[in-house]
Amino acid sequence: MRNISRAELKNASVPQLKTLCDALREEIFRTVSECGGHLASNLGTVELTVALHRVFDFPRDKIVFDVGHQCYTHKLLSGRAELFHTLRKEGGLSGFPKREESEYDCYGTGHAGTAVSAALGIAKARDLKGEDFNVIALVGDGAFQNGLIFEAMNSVRLLRSNILILLNDNGMSISPTQGGTHEILSELKDGAPEDDVRLFERFGLRYSGVVNGNDLDELLPALENARAALRHESVILHVVTKKGQGYPFSENAPAETHGFDPRPVTRAEYPSALGEELIGLAEKDERVVAITAAMTDSLGLRGFFEKFPQRAFDVGICEEHASVLAAALAAEGMRPYYAIYSTFLQRAFDEIVHDVCAQNLPVTFCVDRAGITGADGETHQGIFDLSYLSFIPNLTVAIPKDIGEFRAMIRASADYGKPLAIRYPRMGTEGSVAPFEMGTFEVLHSTTSDILILAAGERCLEIAEKVLRRAQRNGFDASLVNARFLKPLDTKLLSSRPEKYVVTLEDNVLAGGLGDAVARFLRGSGKEVYSFGYRDAFIPHGEICSLACKYGLDPDEIYACLKELHARG
Amino acid sequence: MRNISRAELKNASVPQLKTLCDALREEIFRTVSECGGHLASNLGTVELTVALHRVFDFPRDKIVFDVGHQCYTHKLLSGRAELFHTLRKEGGLSGFPKREESEYDCYGTGHAGTAVSAALGIAKARDLKGEDFNVIALVGDGAFQNGLIFEAMNSVRLLRSNILILLNDNGMSISPTQGGTHEILSELKDGAPEDDVRLFERFGLRYSGVVNGNDLDELLPALENARAALRHESVILHVVTKKGQGYPFSENAPAETHGFDPRPVTRAEYPSALGEELIGLAEKDERVVAITAAMTDSLGLRGFFEKFPQRAFDVGICEEHASVLAAALAAEGMRPYYAIYSTFLQRAFDEIVHDVCAQNLPVTFCVDRAGITGADGETHQGIFDLSYLSFIPNLTVAIPKDIGEFRAMIRASADYGKPLAIRYPRMGTEGSVAPFEMGTFEVLHSTTSDILILAAGERCLEIAEKVLRRAQRNGFDASLVNARFLKPLDTKLLSSRPEKYVVTLEDNVLAGGLGDAVARFLRGSGKEVYSFGYRDAFIPHGEICSLACKYGLDPDEIYACLKELHARG
Repeated sequence: MRNISRAELKNASVPQLKTLCDALREEIFRTVSECGGHLASNLGTVELTVALHRVFDFPRDKIVFDVGHQCYTHKLLSGRAELFHTLRKEGGLSGFPKREESEYDCYGTGHAGTAVSAALGIAKARDLKGEDFNVIALVGDGAFQNGLIFEAMNSVRLLRSNILILLNDNGMSISPTQGGTHEILSELKDGAPEDDVRLFERFGLRYSGVVNGNDLDELLPALENARAALRHESVILHVVTKKGQGYPFSENAPAETHGFDPRPVTRAEYPSALGEELIGLAEKDERVVAITAAMTDSLGLRGFFEKFPQRAFDVGICEEHASVLAAALAAEGMRPYYAIYSTFLQRAFDEIVHDVCAQNLPVTFCVDRAGITGADGETHQGIFDLSYLSFIPNLTVAIPKDIGEFRAMIRASADYGKPLAIRYPRMGTEGSVAPFEMGTFEVLHSTTSDILILAAGERCLEIAEKVLRRAQRNGFDASLVNARFLKPLDTKLLSSRPEKYVVTLEDNVLAGGLGDAVARFLRGSGKEVYSFGYRDAFIPHGEICSLACKYGLDPDEIYACLKELHARG
Repeated sequence: MRNISRAELKNASVPQLKTLCDALREEIFRTVSECGGHLASNLGTVELTVALHRVFDFPRDKIVFDVGHQCYTHKLLSGRAELFHTLRKEGGLSGFPKREESEYDCYGTGHAGTAVSAALGIAKARDLKGEDFNVIALVGDGAFQNGLIFEAMNSVRLLRSNILILLNDNGMSISPTQGGTHEILSELKDGAPEDDVRLFERFGLRYSGVVNGNDLDELLPALENARAALRHESVILHVVTKKGQGYPFSENAPAETHGFDPRPVTRAEYPSALGEELIGLAEKDERVVAITAAMTDSLGLRGFFEKFPQRAFDVGICEEHASVLAAALAAEGMRPYYAIYSTFLQRAFDEIVHDVCAQNLPVTFCVDRAGITGADGETHQGIFDLSYLSFIPNLTVAIPKDIGEFRAMIRASADYGKPLAIRYPRMGTEGSVAPFEMGTFEVLHSTTSDILILAAGERCLEIAEKVLRRAQRNGFDASLVNARFLKPLDTKLLSSRPEKYVVTLEDNVLAGGLGDAVARFLRGSGKEVYSFGYRDAFIPHGEICSLACKYGLDPDEIYACLKELHARG
């Protein structure tokens, strides 16, 4: 698609804008079909974004996209149309707003709930500097349940710097939204009762709505009015859009078409295994309950939710609350399983420490999408969890070598009785379900070599095996251990192994991970530790294998290290 | 004070209960005067807690105290009166609710905003198990602004397990509460407008109030009605109490008497220095703004807030929002200083990663109360910050050796242009303000010994110096370096030092801290690293020095290590 100039957009007739919307929608559909990405949310916000670009003056005016997965039309309208075919590809456009990519992206996002705080900060800076422009936060109704949004709403009155909150209400997080906030928004959609409107007034926001966000004829005057009102006060404009708009298969299945991955699923998936195992556990053990923060399907929990609706809780995009809820359920004797993506669990860090681990409660964190996840970029790479979990007292941190071992860990967890985090990627190989003991490593290959490789998790074991085969072809060898627990370390095994050199591999930043823990234990033993993992950097979007190699898990480098150690003897 | 039995409490007349309240208030005042602790909040909730113990049936019924600093009367009424003189002393009663201390403490707290989530979890477990008891969350209006509370409120309708939320409204966090939530509560106090009441209904809560929480004649029937209503639905009972009730000096200065520390201030304080330096910076640099999450006074920012009201933001107990606000202000060219206690910053972990560091924005985190803080116990020991900060890309982590160096760091920070965290304890020595370079260590004592000590921060340098004097008296010596940056490490200095043995000291858990980082850098150098810091445990309340010694910074052990290394040569 060619770039569209600001002048073209400003001068177009409304029918021309509608034609543009059709073209944008087609371009988004075509590109996502090829590159993967967020489909339903972007199809839903085409008209809204076109209207914003028509009414406001970007990049002078600033817009913060909450989560940011709905920014495709914005990218297409801000000089990036000709690059749009590179979406989510290594070196290409990010699927999220990114300051370094364009001056039109004033604030980067990826996780939910930051937009109102960010808009307030931008508006406050504007006022302190005596500048004059408009600041918009575009927030979905799913993110609107997040505590961070509420904290920011509470500040609107305090900070007294005007912003426009565009509440994009499509009735969905990834899963449908529910709960108290949803109740209020539903009532507003049913006819804006005065008391709900006054609620927003109390937060210092003039409420305006409900506007059909897929209809330019309604949107354009509504945004113009909002812009005018912004001279005097902060405004919340309630816009209703339809996820998937224009593509009936997406409109009818917004959860299934929220994200789209064009790659064929050639491998087994950990989330499916999680769902199956939890159902198995729950059938035998009444204490088992499952918790998710608005990601039932992608975590593999749909079946559990259908089978045990009384024991399954989707609390919305409320990662902190989910953790405390889990802790309290465990305090009363239940066995909660809280499944969540690695980067989103960062939101609940304090609750893992303060609620679960300080009280030593048997909550199992199923930490999905761990390691490099690829095309979603910086905010979605699960490369910090080993570091932020491994120093928390009372917590056991497990890293299964394949799906079979993951199944075994889930089966063993209900009677473990202590806080447990199991981290795993999305895809893997099935493997067998073998008995194991918590806190033990597994020797996969034992030789008389001087070198011991400790590899954590499936990706690292694959790399290790590949490197070992190369070594064997070149006449040397090393022992290989499945380092399936970062905490506690298998110190018995570590102490008993005779190898002089220990090489660690982990799908995580090096600082604070497996290598550091092993090296700390082996200090003074005379053994030398060499660690491979990701270097100190945020890892952008790209192909998983390529990024892993580039950022620190390079099979050639690892091989070279082994070779040198072998030569040293 | 003697223990009061449940029967006594149930059979007492209301006048007798009032006399009991006087006695409790006296006991609290006397004990806090001696042991330190939270004064104003406990004086304010005596009647409320007596009424709760009269109307409800603890420990069968369960109560979760949000933050937990207001639990003294509860402890006095639940069989712990005779131990109350041990409050906050090592081995004595905790100043917060603690599961392992009493069956009356069903859920431990310390940080704000967890009570509603916890109450919901307990109530849900009750319903799943088919049990029958009441669950109460006691939440202050300060914590009521926290996002976690909102996330939990949003879940009340979803979870459908009845709880009683007791909203203890005293108009204060530690600082006075403000903002949208405060607005709603104020209106309710001014006459409960229907629309506010309906707001709670939408969240699935029957609103009842306002009740004078310092008046048993109002409280007892209100709690009885609430208990009856709980059969059918969740209830929020809005109670107004007066912080410091009964002690005019405390009523009139609730912020100043929120916490009470009986120890004379014999040393200088980092917070005062922070306030002075930020004022100095702000006078010269219009970009400088200060942010706090409801702790203006204890962070030393009162003067700044008075001098620069337009550039000072107290956003309430909203640690996450404060971080994003800071990131956005920095994105627009401001230089935000976000001052916060080490353990409370845990709440903003994801925002440090996702908003500040992933975007490489010049926010300075002033991480106060770092290291062991003593009498507040597990939830307040700042012993994890080096671990949770040191692996975040783009972040510089500084640990000043004294207040002078802290001042120098603050002065250098405004033009640093990158994310910076400075961690420091409350008390210290003044020292001189000397020039330094970011990312460099400082050699304090250089010898020809084989041993190099790297000590981070004032406490560790004191210990190191003490141990060194002992070594010198015993005929050997070691070099001493002020390891004032954990990230970046001063790799130039580390590479150039000739010593064979490196001993690290840090006021943090060992995992993921300075020792690990130094050891990682020195791997393969032939040098041996020995690390002292806290072992893998939550550290309970007690005296700072005694706890530090007990949990890993034992001068005798460190001396023994040096002696052995010296002997080895």
